[in-house]
Amino acid sequence: MDANEFRRLGHQLVDWIADYRVRMPSLPVMSQVRPGEIRARFPKAPPARGGGLADAIAALDRDVLPGVTHWNHPAFFAYFPSNTSLASVLGDLVAAGLGAQGMSWVTSPAATEVEEVVMDWIRQMIGLPESFTGVVQDTASTSTLTALLCARERTSGFSQNGKGLQGGGSPLVVYASEQAHSSIEKDACLAGFGKAHLRLVGTDDAHALRLDLLDRAIAQDLEAGLRPCALVATTGTTGTTALDPVAGMAARAERHGLWLHVDAALAGTAMVLPECRGMWDGIERADSLVFNPHKWMGIGFDFSAYFVRDPQHLVRVMSTNPSYLRTAHDAEVRNLRDWGIPLGRRFRALKAWFHLVDVGVEAIQARIRRDLENARWLAAQVDAAPGWERMAPVPLQTVCLRHLPAGERDEARLAAHNLEIANGVNRGGKAYVTPSVLKGRQMIRVSVGAEGTEREHVEEVWGLLQEAAR
Amino acid sequence: MDANEFRRLGHQLVDWIADYRVRMPSLPVMSQVRPGEIRARFPKAPPARGGGLADAIAALDRDVLPGVTHWNHPAFFAYFPSNTSLASVLGDLVAAGLGAQGMSWVTSPAATEVEEVVMDWIRQMIGLPESFTGVVQDTASTSTLTALLCARERTSGFSQNGKGLQGGGSPLVVYASEQAHSSIEKDACLAGFGKAHLRLVGTDDAHALRLDLLDRAIAQDLEAGLRPCALVATTGTTGTTALDPVAGMAARAERHGLWLHVDAALAGTAMVLPECRGMWDGIERADSLVFNPHKWMGIGFDFSAYFVRDPQHLVRVMSTNPSYLRTAHDAEVRNLRDWGIPLGRRFRALKAWFHLVDVGVEAIQARIRRDLENARWLAAQVDAAPGWERMAPVPLQTVCLRHLPAGERDEARLAAHNLEIANGVNRGGKAYVTPSVLKGRQMIRVSVGAEGTEREHVEEVWGLLQEAAR
Repeated sequence: MDANEFRRLGHQLVDWIADYRVRMPSLPVMSQVRPGEIRARFPKAPPARGGGLADAIAALDRDVLPGVTHWNHPAFFAYFPSNTSLASVLGDLVAAGLGAQGMSWVTSPAATEVEEVVMDWIRQMIGLPESFTGVVQDTASTSTLTALLCARERTSGFSQNGKGLQGGGSPLVVYASEQAHSSIEKDACLAGFGKAHLRLVGTDDAHALRLDLLDRAIAQDLEAGLRPCALVATTGTTGTTALDPVAGMAARAERHGLWLHVDAALAGTAMVLPECRGMWDGIERADSLVFNPHKWMGIGFDFSAYFVRDPQHLVRVMSTNPSYLRTAHDAEVRNLRDWGIPLGRRFRALKAWFHLVDVGVEAIQARIRRDLENARWLAAQVDAAPGWERMAPVPLQTVCLRHLPAGERDEARLAAHNLEIANGVNRGGKAYVTPSVLKGRQMIRVSVGAEGTEREHVEEVWGLLQEAAR
Repeated sequence: MDANEFRRLGHQLVDWIADYRVRMPSLPVMSQVRPGEIRARFPKAPPARGGGLADAIAALDRDVLPGVTHWNHPAFFAYFPSNTSLASVLGDLVAAGLGAQGMSWVTSPAATEVEEVVMDWIRQMIGLPESFTGVVQDTASTSTLTALLCARERTSGFSQNGKGLQGGGSPLVVYASEQAHSSIEKDACLAGFGKAHLRLVGTDDAHALRLDLLDRAIAQDLEAGLRPCALVATTGTTGTTALDPVAGMAARAERHGLWLHVDAALAGTAMVLPECRGMWDGIERADSLVFNPHKWMGIGFDFSAYFVRDPQHLVRVMSTNPSYLRTAHDAEVRNLRDWGIPLGRRFRALKAWFHLVDVGVEAIQARIRRDLENARWLAAQVDAAPGWERMAPVPLQTVCLRHLPAGERDEARLAAHNLEIANGVNRGGKAYVTPSVLKGRQMIRVSVGAEGTEREHVEEVWGLLQEAAR
């Protein structure tokens, strides 16, 4: 493709995206296709000859869009929000066009240094002290794996340089709440700890980790000759946005030499509001924390912000230094390949830069306050509606609820009923919510926070839920 | 930003990228900025108010571009090529604009199914049998970590569901050649094996793994009560593109129950040429393999192709299934969150689809043949030039060479001399090569394969090297 054809098709696709965003509210939020339906529209073999791009672009509406679930739709209330602002799209376009690879400083100094700039902006925005340094990772899952690996190596005196976890010492143990994200268990398994050395500690009525049970678990492990290693606190669990007691957990971490990692994947964005920062009181005592600006802040996926208090430790765990990667500047610069698992790195800072200068901090604050207010409004409706139950506190923007038909108390029938309500709403295409299970009880999660979601959309999803329940 | 402003700025940036690609040959290949120079051009604090995007776009040329090393430059001969075709840029633009998240099938069925389609196209393109199934990962580093985790779990009878690597059984051992990529050592460390259980086996004069030394290492480990677990073969090492004997290694893997993983990060693309497939003879016996279409095939970074023979095993190692991720279709579809480490996934298949339909297989084959021919031409020049030494065979597109001034045989002085040649060429900005060390001897790697690299550019870098040597 020459530059002129790129101009022509590029303009066409920019317009296509603009049109897509405009007509999005009229599209079904959740894709309505059947398994295999999209795949069947594509040839089974690759094209021997080229020239098919114009056809592919023309096929987007027919063959791809029906298979897309619209995460930026104003009636997207599923999972957690994952907003991609249009400014962020433009930043990503520039990154793709440059095609620069930021594995080392020298392989594109701007990729490293603009990342340093925007990660420090984000640190300031969420009120983290200067003692934290940030780096972009792809996802919270990967960030948490990185944290657990750093914990493992700190506690084990850098076992990876010797026998790894196969040296026969006291087994290392990881702690988190039973409401922690599934990636904690996955990451503990991948890091080699083993499920038998993961303690999923019980939670209180607000679904936050209970410190007394944590104390008991640590004491039992110490008694059994095991070695407490890492503690994961969640600020805003995926199930209900519950808030683990970070300060209390930090005290335990300090007492027992545990690595404290805070998973604030969704909630980190709320910390742009000073009034929310009490939710993670004690955060300055964490060893690492992750939050996802690609969720609620508007920077397009993937952009996970991983902050550490001791970058030298991170680099020691992750560094590689073969001769073909050594450069004259290594002592003066950050080589971000040594700050995570992958070697190659995209220029993801551009989309963050574009987004932040386009909207500014105050507009992000206003939007977050709007979403919190909308969630509180919905919670109040649920509380006031006969036959409905709110399943958890609403400290942030996610409301967990279920329908309780008069006289019905059988959990199996309630589960089927509420699953059908959620699936019915989703099949209808006018809103998208997530059915989920909380401590054995089926519920429906309504997670507010798409950029375009206004009060009217929250009113509408509440109406749809009530209608589906009838 | 509303849709109209997006149109306006989007058109402007498409044009900017088109202009950038046209004027790229006139820019210094390697960025010439000093450490901190780019960072200093940005404000230290984030903007309170928005509206700054037009300024940011205007600042691209002044504040960002000087800090970019141009990986798509026709005189880029460093590392390995990392091409981003303009068609691929457009596919990435669509992915960003859709902002869809493909963690589960239902969260955007097209993201999963188009990935299934293009990964099977790529499988066919490189002549892999139907017994392999592909999935996109970010990098070869991550793919190899995934492979080592799968190996660990297969050999240990799924230890992660129990005590992990902390159960005190016979330690598991990983084997690769001492020319294997640095990520193998990093990944073995991260997976918990420990450096003490990694055998970097010696190589022959062509820098390929020696089977006799592998046999000896395995025998010694078995005798010592250790448990051979994983074997990594490299097709096209990073140092010299050496070719490990895959078939011979497969025989050892089968004999001892080792997981055979093939790292063909660069060389995989060459397998679009049937005449190259002898280089990885035996590949059908591998358990997993990775190659990076984002290197030499033209699909923009990141797009690493990971193929496995037993997807069920991969899913068993990587799966998570909390209630909020369960859907009605789980039995009928692939949920690609269970095929790798991160939970969230971008719609990366779009850029592959756009690239492949734009160019077609035959044009990719022609371009790869051109690059192989250009590398052979350069190798012949080096062989014929007095005072120059070719340091390794050239089976692919990378030529390793050094200058040997008459009478000079002191390795330290030769190293300084050749490092200065490489750095001199790079500082000059007219080409970018990689200084590297091969078995203790300083060399210069000239890696051919940018999309725009024609014979004249290879002639020019050869001229620049000769000039720098004088």
